[in-house]
Amino acid sequence: MNILLLHGINLNMFGQRDSKQYGTITFAQIEERARTLAGELGVALESFQTNFEGEMVERLHRAHREATDAVVINPGAWTHYSIGLRDALEILAVPVVEVHMSNIHRREPFREHSVLTAVATGQICGFGVESYLIGIRAAVALARAGAKRV
Amino acid sequence: MNILLLHGINLNMFGQRDSKQYGTITFAQIEERARTLAGELGVALESFQTNFEGEMVERLHRAHREATDAVVINPGAWTHYSIGLRDALEILAVPVVEVHMSNIHRREPFREHSVLTAVATGQICGFGVESYLIGIRAAVALARAGAKRV
Amino acid sequence: MNILLLHGINLNMFGQRDSKQYGTITFAQIEERARTLAGELGVALESFQTNFEGEMVERLHRAHREATDAVVINPGAWTHYSIGLRDALEILAVPVVEVHMSNIHRREPFREHSVLTAVATGQICGFGVESYLIGIRAAVALARAGAKRV
Amino acid sequence: MNILLLHGINLNMFGQRDSKQYGTITFAQIEERARTLAGELGVALESFQTNFEGEMVERLHRAHREATDAVVINPGAWTHYSIGLRDALEILAVPVVEVHMSNIHRREPFREHSVLTAVATGQICGFGVESYLIGIRAAVALARAGAKRV
Amino acid sequence: MNILLLHGINLNMFGQRDSKQYGTITFAQIEERARTLAGELGVALESFQTNFEGEMVERLHRAHREATDAVVINPGAWTHYSIGLRDALEILAVPVVEVHMSNIHRREPFREHSVLTAVATGQICGFGVESYLIGIRAAVALARAGAKRV
Amino acid sequence: MNILLLHGINLNMFGQRDSKQYGTITFAQIEERARTLAGELGVALESFQTNFEGEMVERLHRAHREATDAVVINPGAWTHYSIGLRDALEILAVPVVEVHMSNIHRREPFREHSVLTAVATGQICGFGVESYLIGIRAAVALARAGAKRV
Amino acid sequence: MNILLLHGINLNMFGQRDSKQYGTITFAQIEERARTLAGELGVALESFQTNFEGEMVERLHRAHREATDAVVINPGAWTHYSIGLRDALEILAVPVVEVHMSNIHRREPFREHSVLTAVATGQICGFGVESYLIGIRAAVALARAGAKRV
Amino acid sequence: MNILLLHGINLNMFGQRDSKQYGTITFAQIEERARTLAGELGVALESFQTNFEGEMVERLHRAHREATDAVVINPGAWTHYSIGLRDALEILAVPVVEVHMSNIHRREPFREHSVLTAVATGQICGFGVESYLIGIRAAVALARAGAKRV
Amino acid sequence: MNILLLHGINLNMFGQRDSKQYGTITFAQIEERARTLAGELGVALESFQTNFEGEMVERLHRAHREATDAVVINPGAWTHYSIGLRDALEILAVPVVEVHMSNIHRREPFREHSVLTAVATGQICGFGVESYLIGIRAAVALARAGAKRV
Amino acid sequence: MNILLLHGINLNMFGQRDSKQYGTITFAQIEERARTLAGELGVALESFQTNFEGEMVERLHRAHREATDAVVINPGAWTHYSIGLRDALEILAVPVVEVHMSNIHRREPFREHSVLTAVATGQICGFGVESYLIGIRAAVALARAGAKRV
Amino acid sequence: MNILLLHGINLNMFGQRDSKQYGTITFAQIEERARTLAGELGVALESFQTNFEGEMVERLHRAHREATDAVVINPGAWTHYSIGLRDALEILAVPVVEVHMSNIHRREPFREHSVLTAVATGQICGFGVESYLIGIRAAVALARAGAKRV
Amino acid sequence: MNILLLHGINLNMFGQRDSKQYGTITFAQIEERARTLAGELGVALESFQTNFEGEMVERLHRAHREATDAVVINPGAWTHYSIGLRDALEILAVPVVEVHMSNIHRREPFREHSVLTAVATGQICGFGVESYLIGIRAAVALARAGAKRV
Repeated sequence: MNILLLHGINLNMFGQRDSKQYGTITFAQIEERARTLAGELGVALESFQTNFEGEMVERLHRAHREATDAVVINPGAWTHYSIGLRDALEILAVPVVEVHMSNIHRREPFREHSVLTAVATGQICGFGVESYLIGIRAAVALARAGAKRV
Repeated sequence: MNILLLHGINLNMFGQRDSKQYGTITFAQIEERARTLAGELGVALESFQTNFEGEMVERLHRAHREATDAVVINPGAWTHYSIGLRDALEILAVPVVEVHMSNIHRREPFREHSVLTAVATGQICGFGVESYLIGIRAAVALARAGAKRV
Repeated sequence: MNILLLHGINLNMFGQRDSKQYGTITFAQIEERARTLAGELGVALESFQTNFEGEMVERLHRAHREATDAVVINPGAWTHYSIGLRDALEILAVPVVEVHMSNIHRREPFREHSVLTAVATGQICGFGVESYLIGIRAAVALARAGAKRV
Repeated sequence: MNILLLHGINLNMFGQRDSKQYGTITFAQIEERARTLAGELGVALESFQTNFEGEMVERLHRAHREATDAVVINPGAWTHYSIGLRDALEILAVPVVEVHMSNIHRREPFREHSVLTAVATGQICGFGVESYLIGIRAAVALARAGAKRV
Repeated sequence: MNILLLHGINLNMFGQRDSKQYGTITFAQIEERARTLAGELGVALESFQTNFEGEMVERLHRAHREATDAVVINPGAWTHYSIGLRDALEILAVPVVEVHMSNIHRREPFREHSVLTAVATGQICGFGVESYLIGIRAAVALARAGAKRV
Repeated sequence: MNILLLHGINLNMFGQRDSKQYGTITFAQIEERARTLAGELGVALESFQTNFEGEMVERLHRAHREATDAVVINPGAWTHYSIGLRDALEILAVPVVEVHMSNIHRREPFREHSVLTAVATGQICGFGVESYLIGIRAAVALARAGAKRV
Repeated sequence: MNILLLHGINLNMFGQRDSKQYGTITFAQIEERARTLAGELGVALESFQTNFEGEMVERLHRAHREATDAVVINPGAWTHYSIGLRDALEILAVPVVEVHMSNIHRREPFREHSVLTAVATGQICGFGVESYLIGIRAAVALARAGAKRV
Repeated sequence: MNILLLHGINLNMFGQRDSKQYGTITFAQIEERARTLAGELGVALESFQTNFEGEMVERLHRAHREATDAVVINPGAWTHYSIGLRDALEILAVPVVEVHMSNIHRREPFREHSVLTAVATGQICGFGVESYLIGIRAAVALARAGAKRV
Repeated sequence: MNILLLHGINLNMFGQRDSKQYGTITFAQIEERARTLAGELGVALESFQTNFEGEMVERLHRAHREATDAVVINPGAWTHYSIGLRDALEILAVPVVEVHMSNIHRREPFREHSVLTAVATGQICGFGVESYLIGIRAAVALARAGAKRV
Repeated sequence: MNILLLHGINLNMFGQRDSKQYGTITFAQIEERARTLAGELGVALESFQTNFEGEMVERLHRAHREATDAVVINPGAWTHYSIGLRDALEILAVPVVEVHMSNIHRREPFREHSVLTAVATGQICGFGVESYLIGIRAAVALARAGAKRV
Repeated sequence: MNILLLHGINLNMFGQRDSKQYGTITFAQIEERARTLAGELGVALESFQTNFEGEMVERLHRAHREATDAVVINPGAWTHYSIGLRDALEILAVPVVEVHMSNIHRREPFREHSVLTAVATGQICGFGVESYLIGIRAAVALARAGAKRV
Repeated sequence: MNILLLHGINLNMFGQRDSKQYGTITFAQIEERARTLAGELGVALESFQTNFEGEMVERLHRAHREATDAVVINPGAWTHYSIGLRDALEILAVPVVEVHMSNIHRREPFREHSVLTAVATGQICGFGVESYLIGIRAAVALARAGAKRV
C-alpha cells in the first residue's frame, strides 16, 4: 500500500514560522514522525513538498496515473484560494485526507473556508503534528477498506 | 486516563438515518468500536448520549468537576446553532476533539459552519466511524502530552 | 391510518398570546377541531405538545419505529433554528406537513426562513386554525396516495 | 360564493414539464379536479390562465370590481419577481390563497422567496395537485368566515 | 411586589468560567447580592436557573399566570438563538429587563446580536454583577410606574 | 413642445388602492390636473397607460421616432424590476423625468431601489399628485433649455 | 407663508466644484433664482447655509419653535451619514422637501442611499438648479394644502 | 433541420441604441446575416422578435410541440429577471444557445448575472453580430450531434 | 467623586420630539432627576450638552486632563456614525456608561448598531429617564470599585 | 494570420477527469480538432498548455511582443482567482476569446464568476469541444475585422 | 512652494492615546519633525488642526482659493465616515496625500475602508511619524512635477 | 544595511501596460531610480522580479535566512489573492513596506482589498514611481530605528 504525503506552499518553513500557531516542531521532524508511523502501519510513504502550484498539480496528475492508494495533503495557504489544486484533487479516484496543524476555524476569518474540502474525503485540523499522524491512519484505514474518493 | 465520549442530538439513530451520508453502521456498533480501541490504548472511556441540550451541558459541567482528561464529542445538529453547548465546552480546561462522521463541508451550506470549533482543540470530519476512532487517538495523544484546551 | 399531530414550543399558550397574530382560539379548541376532522376523515389522530426539543425529537424517533402514516407539525419558534428537529424529521419515511397559523412571510424578517421546510413534503401558513385542518387533509391525502417523504 | 382560480405563466404546460418536480398530471386534469371539488363544496369556481402579466393584472382589477369572494392563485415564475402582480393583489379586499404544486423551499435558492406572499392571506406549497384542492378549501373557509385580506 | 430573576444556560457555572470575561464572582454570591438589594428595595425576589430551554419557557408561562410584576433575565447563550425563549417573553404583559455581566458588544461578533432584546423593555450589559443590581432597580422602577411590556 | 406622460402597471387603479399610501385621488383626476397644467405652460401633453410591459416599451420606441420633447413617467411596480423598460428609456435622447406619488424610500425595503433612475434625468417622489405636476414643470424646463438625456 | 431653504456642507462652493456633476451655476445665482421664484409665488423665503452639522441642527430646532411653514433642504454630503440631521428633521411637524442638483442614483454607489429621505415628505434629484425651484413649488403646494410631515 | 432564432425585448431597436455597446448594425442586417449563414449550413431558420414576455413564452411552448431542432436566443433585458422565460426554456428538450452582442460581464453589475444560463446549453457573449453567427453554428453542431438540453 | 453627564446631538429637544419613542419628559426634567440622584449618592455631577461633535470631543479631552471619575453619555444619533466620538472616548481611562432612553434594538435597523459600545464599559437602553438614573448608579459603583475603562 | 490557443491548469488531463462535466474527449483530440479547423480557415494556430501561472503569464508577455493576431484561452480553474492572468491579458491589444467546455453558470456557485471576462472580448461556454471551435472562428472573424481588445 | 498639513479629529491628543497603536510621540513633536523636513526640502509648510468637520472643510475651501501647492492630511476618524470632507477634498485641483500613523488595514474592520482615498492622489499608512514625513516628501515631489489631483 | 526590493507578477511589463494607470515609465527606469536613491541613502539594494508565486515565496524564505534589514514589495496582482505570499511575508522578522504605483482604492472594487497589508508594516499607493522611492525611504528609516515587523 502506497500513501502519498503532500506539503504545500511555505510548509518547508515549519519551525521557523509563528510558533504560537504551529509550535517549534520542524519540517524534518514532521517527516520523521510520519515515516516512523508508516513503518509501524506497514505501508510505503512517499513525501513531496513544493511552493509551486504547478508542481503540486502535476504531482497529483502523476499520482492519478500511478499506483497510489491514498493521499494525505496539507495544502498550506492554497487551502483558501487554489481552485486549480481542487480540480487536480478531484481527478483522483482514491481517498484524499486534508490536514492542518492549526485549527483553521479559530484564526483569521479568511482561513475558515477551504476551497478544497468539498473534494476531500475528510478534513483534520488543530492537532499539531498529530494532525499528520491521525491523517495517515485515516488514509490507511480508508484505503484498506477499499474506499473511493466520492 | 479518562476519556469522555459524547454523542449529541439524533445520534442514537445512526444506522436508521440517511445511509448515503452515514452508512449503515449502528450506534451500538460505533460504541463497540470505540470501547475496543480504548482498551487497546489502555484508557478508560465513558460514553454519553442525549437529545437534550440541557443534559449535555450539565454532563460537561460534571466533566469540569471530575477527573476527565479529554473530551471527544460529535454534537450532531447542535454543531450549527447551540452556542449554549459552545459555552459549556469553553469552561473545560482539557482537550476537546470535535468529530463528525460525514464531511460537513460538502453537504448543505448551513452545515459548513460550526459554532463550536472555535472552542475545540481540533476538528475531524468525513471518515465515518473512523472519525470517532482517530478522534479518540488524538484525544489520548493530546492528554498524554499534557495539552490544555486553549 | 394513523396521523401524528405535533405542537412545538410555546404552542400550549395559544389564546394567551399576541391576538393580532394568532386570534383568540385556544390550544384546547384547536385540538378539538382537529379531532373532529379526523373523525370525519376516518383516521386516528394522536396529538403531542412539548416545550423541550429533546422530547420532540424522541417523539419523532418513536414515530419512525411505529405505525405512523403521516406527520402534521407546527414547530413554533423552532421553525427558525432547530436543525436538530430538522434532522429528526429527515429520518422519517412518511409525509411531513409543516403548518403555521400565521403567515410567517409577513412578520419579522427572521420568521421568513424555515430550517425545516426543505425536509417537509410541503408547508401551509397563514390560515389560522384552518392551517391545521387543511394540513390534516393534505397529510391524509398524501398517505392514502402512498406518498413517501422525499 | 364565487371563487376565482388563477394560473400564471407557463402553467398551461403542466404535464409537459419537468416530471420530477410536478408529476405527470396535466393542466386539464387539475382544472377538472378543482371543478369537482367546487361542486362538492357548493361554490362557483371561475378559472383563468394567462402568460401575460398585463392580462393577469387586469383580471385582478376586474375581480376587484366584481363579486369575487376569494382568490386562489398559482403565480408560477412570477412568484419571484412580478411586483406588478403583488400590487394588483394588494388592491383586493378578499382573501388571497397562494398555491404551488412543488415545495418552493427545496428547489433552487431563487425560488425560496415569494414577492407575493406578504400580500397573500396564506401560502400552500409542496402537495402537487392537492395544493390546489386544499387551497380552494382554505379560500372557501376564509370567505365563509367573512375574512378580509389584511 | 414580586420580581422574578431568571438565569439561563451555563450561568450556574459563574466563577468557574473565563475569569477575563466574568470575573471571579460565583453564582451564589450574585444571588446573595440580588437578595440583599431586593430586601433594601422592599420587594419579593424569586430566582430560577435552568440549563433546559423547555424549563425556562414553562417558568415564563407560569409567570404569565401568576402575580409577577417584572422579570429580570440573563439568558446566557440563548440570547443569540433561542427564538423559543423570545416568544415566551413576548407572552408576558409585565416589564422584562435583559441583563448581561459582560459587554456583549465587545466580544465575538455573534454575541453582538440578541434575538430577545426586541421583546424586552430594555437591555443592560457590561457591568458585571452590577448589571443584575441595576437591572433589579430598573425592574422595580418600571413596575412601580405601572409600566407594561410593550 | 410635446410632453409624453406615461403611467405603468396598476396605475389606472389610483383611488381604488391603499389610500394610506396614495390618497383618494383618482386616475382621471390626475390626468385632469396634468392637462390643466400643460395648458397653462403652453405645451402639448399626450398621456398613455398600460399594464403590459411590451406596450410600454413599444410606446417608448415610437416616442424615439416621433417629435417628443420630454418624457414624464410613473412606472409603478416596474420601477423595481423591469430592466426591459430601463433599456427602452435608455434609447431616448430627450429628458426623462421619473415620478412617484408616494415616497418610495419610506415603504418596504424592496421599493427603495429603482432600476430605472440611472437612465432618467432625475427622480421626484413623495408629493402625491404634485409629483406629476412638478415633474411636468421639470420636463418642460429641461426641454426648453435644450437638455439631452445623458 | 414662510419657506426655509437650507444648504448643507460644501454647497457654498457650487460653481467651483466638479462641473460635470453640477454645472457652472454659482451658489449666489441659485439663491437669486430661488428668491425670484419665491417672489412670484408670494411667499417669504429665508435661506441658510452652513458647513457645521451642529449649526444646521440648531437652525432646525429654531424652525421648530418659529413660524416656518415648510423646509426645502439640500443636505450635501450629510445626506449619506448625518443621522443627527435626520433626527433634527424628524422633530419638525411641517413638510420637508429634500433636493439634490445631481441625480444621486447614477453616481458613486455610496451616494444612492439617503439616511434622510425616510423622514422627508419627498425627494427631488437630478434637475440642476431646477431641483431647487420645483422643490420650492412642492413645498409651497404642500404647505398651502395644510400637509404635515408624516 | 429547423433552427429557431429568438430576439427579446427592445432588440428590434438595434442600430438605434447605444452605439458604444452595440455598434451601428441594424436588426434587419443581423437577420440578413443569420439567414445567409443558415443557407450556407443547409438548415431552415425561423426568426421571431417580441417585446411581450407572454408572446415569447408562448412561442417557446409552440417550439416544444413542433419540430424545432435547436433554439438560439438573445433575451435582451429579460436575461436578468424573467424567470418566466427561464421556465419556458426549461420545458424544451432541444439545445438552447443564449447569445448576447455585448460582453455582459463588463457592463453594469446587474447585467453580469443571467437567470437563464442555468437552463441553457451554453452562453456566448461579446462578439457583436458574430455572437449570433457562432451561436447558430453551435446550435447546428449540437443538433447534428443529437444533443439534448440537459 | 466627580461624574460627567454628557448629552449629544438633538438631546436638548427631549420632550419636543417623537413622544412615542421618548415620552413627554423634558431635557430640564431629566437634568433635575439626575442632579437629585447625584445628591443622594453624594457625588458631584457635571452636565454638558452640545450639538457639535467637535465640542463633545474637546469636552472629553478636558475630562481626560481633569479629575473626572466616570462618564455617563447619551450620544444621541452620533451613536451610529461618530467614530470621532468613539476615539475620544477611547482616550479616557475611567469607566464610560452609554445610555439611551429608547430601546435602540427595537427601532429602525440602523439604530441597532452602536459604533461606541465597544469602547464603553457597558450599555443601558430602553428605560426612559430611568436609563440615566441607573446609568449614574452604575458609574458611581464602578468608580467606587476603582474600575478602569478597559 | 496567427492565432494563439492557450490551455490553463489541469487541462492536459481532459478525458481523464469528471466525464459528466467534460465528456470523454481527450486533450489530444481537442488539439487535433482545433488544428483541422485552423487549416480549413487558413490561419496559423499555435497551442500552449501549462500548469504554472508564471509560464502562462510569460507566454502572454511574449504574445504581446510577437505577431499574434488573436488569443483563444481556456483558463481552467484560474478563471476564478488568477488576477495575475487577468492583468497579463489586459496588456494585449488583440482580441481575446475566453472559452469553457462546460457551462460554468450551472455548476458550483464559485464557478459562476470569472475574474478574466472583464478583460476578454467575449466569452463562450457550455458547448464541449465546440466551445473551442466556435471560439477559434470568433477570434478569426474579429482579427479579420481588425478588432482591438477594448 | 506651499504645503498644507492638516490634522483631523482627536489628533491633537497624540501621545496621550493608545500607545500600542500610536507610540508615545506627541502632537508637538510630530509638528516639529514636519517643520524640520520642510526646511530641508525648502518648502513652506502651514499646519492646521481641528476637531470640527466644518472648520476642516472651510480650511480646504480657503486652500482652493489660495496658492496651496499640495495637501497632506491625516483625517483621523473622519477617514471612515466624513463624506463632507471627501467632497471638500474633491474640489481641490492640487495633489492630496492621505496619511495615517497606524496601519489601518490591521486594526478593527471598520477602519479598513477610507471614504476619502478615492479622491486622494495616494495613501500612506503604518509608519508612525514617518508616515507624515514621507507624505510630505511625496507631496513635494508631486507638486514639483506639476501633478494635478485627478 | 541591505534592502530587498521585490516586484511581483507582470511588473516586468511596466511601460508596456495601461498607460492611464501606470504612466509610461519602464521597469528598467524604476530600477534605475531605486538604485540611485539607495546610493544616496548609503544602503545596499537588491532587486528581484518573478512571475512565479513559488519563486517569490522562496526568495522570501532566503531573505529570512540571510542578512536582509527590510523588504519593499510591489506584489502586483498577487496583492489580491496570494495568501501564500502573505504567509511567506509573515515569517519575516524585519519591516515590510507594501507599495503600489496606482491608487488601488480608486480602481476596480476587487483591487481595494489587499490580503497582504495585514502582515506588512505599512502600505503606500498612488504615487507612481514615487511610491517605490518613498517606500525605500520608509524601509530605511524603519530599519535604522531597529523596527521589527509586528
